[in-house]
Amino acid sequence: MSVALPTAPPVASAGLDIDLALVQEAAQTIKASVQRTPVLRCHAIEHAALRNDSNSSFKPEFFFKCELFQKTGSFKVRGALNAVAHLPSTVTDVVTHSSGNHAQALAWAARTKGLRAHIVMPRTAPKVKVDAVKGYGGQVYLCEPTVEARWAMAGELVASTGGALVHPSDDYPVMAGQGTVALEFLEQVEEETGGKSLDALIIPVGGGGLLGGMAVAAKALHPHIKIIGAEPSMVDDAFRSKAAGHLCLHPSPSPRSIADGLLTVLGQRTYPIVSSDKVDAIITVSEQEIAQAMRLVYERMKLVIEPSAGVGVAVAMRGDELEAVLGIGCRRVGVVLCGGNLDMDRLDGIWRLARGEDDVMRDREGSERRERNDQDGVDTK
Amino acid sequence: MSVALPTAPPVASAGLDIDLALVQEAAQTIKASVQRTPVLRCHAIEHAALRNDSNSSFKPEFFFKCELFQKTGSFKVRGALNAVAHLPSTVTDVVTHSSGNHAQALAWAARTKGLRAHIVMPRTAPKVKVDAVKGYGGQVYLCEPTVEARWAMAGELVASTGGALVHPSDDYPVMAGQGTVALEFLEQVEEETGGKSLDALIIPVGGGGLLGGMAVAAKALHPHIKIIGAEPSMVDDAFRSKAAGHLCLHPSPSPRSIADGLLTVLGQRTYPIVSSDKVDAIITVSEQEIAQAMRLVYERMKLVIEPSAGVGVAVAMRGDELEAVLGIGCRRVGVVLCGGNLDMDRLDGIWRLARGEDDVMRDREGSERRERNDQDGVDTK
Repeated sequence: MSVALPTAPPVASAGLDIDLALVQEAAQTIKASVQRTPVLRCHAIEHAALRNDSNSSFKPEFFFKCELFQKTGSFKVRGALNAVAHLPSTVTDVVTHSSGNHAQALAWAARTKGLRAHIVMPRTAPKVKVDAVKGYGGQVYLCEPTVEARWAMAGELVASTGGALVHPSDDYPVMAGQGTVALEFLEQVEEETGGKSLDALIIPVGGGGLLGGMAVAAKALHPHIKIIGAEPSMVDDAFRSKAAGHLCLHPSPSPRSIADGLLTVLGQRTYPIVSSDKVDAIITVSEQEIAQAMRLVYERMKLVIEPSAGVGVAVAMRGDELEAVLGIGCRRVGVVLCGGNLDMDRLDGIWRLARGEDDVMRDREGSERRERNDQDGVDTK
Repeated sequence: MSVALPTAPPVASAGLDIDLALVQEAAQTIKASVQRTPVLRCHAIEHAALRNDSNSSFKPEFFFKCELFQKTGSFKVRGALNAVAHLPSTVTDVVTHSSGNHAQALAWAARTKGLRAHIVMPRTAPKVKVDAVKGYGGQVYLCEPTVEARWAMAGELVASTGGALVHPSDDYPVMAGQGTVALEFLEQVEEETGGKSLDALIIPVGGGGLLGGMAVAAKALHPHIKIIGAEPSMVDDAFRSKAAGHLCLHPSPSPRSIADGLLTVLGQRTYPIVSSDKVDAIITVSEQEIAQAMRLVYERMKLVIEPSAGVGVAVAMRGDELEAVLGIGCRRVGVVLCGGNLDMDRLDGIWRLARGEDDVMRDREGSERRERNDQDGVDTK
């Protein structure tokens, strides 16, 4: 069985496509409510990247866009805010189902507009995540941990509240909101370097909202910039979709990766962008590489990132493949640290995975069960 | 047995005292080499602080000075750089013994001045710390893990190299370097708030170099600012010294706290400042409070801090005591996040301690042994 994607277009998307203008408009829309998150450098990580490939003259400088410092702890709030702003003024309620960053982001975004947010979460979701959504003023509905139950409850809520369903990625206003990361990032690097621009961007890909939105914006501004999607090899649907030329779903009904924000699959709106020449390559990395990259960021940058953000850093460590895609003349590579939300109790297992001491995925049966319940094409973290 | 303090004055201190001018001079000296680390806010932590004391109208805003982002991962590099700059031009070598942040900082500072750094470390020091010192170009000398062996080897190195001993805290140029944190912090908060100044500073205290240097500078600029030292109750020599009116050492020869950067004691130069009215109070916190504060910072600020930095945050959570010291009209409280260096493998035990599930101090026999070996009045982390 493959995972079925929801196909009903969210209210917010009707009649829209995505282009640079929509992203620029989104930037204006959300500007007052989001953080202009910092861009940080780390020589130790550049040095670590070189060690893997010390004979090459390919020595990129890395710039890290710190969306872990964004409101609600991830970039997701950009898309949620823009989606909410695109709703007809008659809409008073928004609905989604998610146990992850999108749930918190939508609850927070809805509150800023005075809307009610109805968030369906599986009853197995960690209390800390349920509390976070409630803390942002969202109304939480616990359902049985099955795909069917979550869609059914979300559908009932749309019907009973007249609310708009806001998809976490496969929605043009959402993608445009996420694309604002690219506008800011390019501008900040030019400010910092005295006018030089990024030669490449490494962007984690799950549902493709961030990758799609950023690719559209960055390629429109700098047609020669290279765009790389970063994906866990255990959930490589974007890699396989781009290679095959058609939308591939996860081969298993229970996709697994420590990068729980990236278990989702591309959709009808994100796939066409990811498969186009707006995205130059998808590079996949192992679970151990993700864990090692996380540890490097914790130790050397002193930043708390979630595994999904580690995926981009792990790709930055892949000197040979980066050189093949970017060319030896590539100097400035931007890496999006997409979020910093994770249960701190997971870190010990992640460090063991980094050392190769343990198969953490096998160990975490409770989490597996949660992940299996969450693999419904919405957001799983 | 109490812990004996080294009393020989380091070369760098001869004939100096400390005042605002010395701190301002230090700021000029080190400016080009250090980071102007960011000041961050966190509403979630302000909110968490209020929960403990929700009926009070004492609702301070917290400003966090992020020295975890400083070169070598802690503020220590400020003092080390200034100490090195104060050395006679004939000096070509510096010597210290430390297995902690001062070791890395001095190695790094020496390299920027083209000096050789000789760092004595116990042979039980974690490899990661030895490697960090070597990575900054320091020459590492492993000795038996006893106080006597470390002092003996440091003494031999001073004799054989003609090098200057640089103490991590009880040294005026070092204190002046650490005091530059106050100048920057006050300036940054005024920039951010449109001219309002901090009403109070919470500063972790171990050897007292940071607390002493910052207190001297801040009180000279703003005589009404309140200065609070933050100390683990398990190693409360500063608290007891201030209360007793004389220098108290640790009652045990093996002081223990997860805040391994604060196991040292005040010295002949730092004690007089800490005991004076330049420091308004010392507030002590439990090991569990330190661990809980760390978790709060990891979860909500997305910052990797070491336990010593958690001590300051734990004091910020002590609403009743803060109100008693600061007065109900106090609005803006600065908290120094002094560093971000810790072994990531310690986090799991720290989270267990935060939950009160375990006596981590009892569990960590290997670490205890290390700490016992390190409790020699230099730096223990």
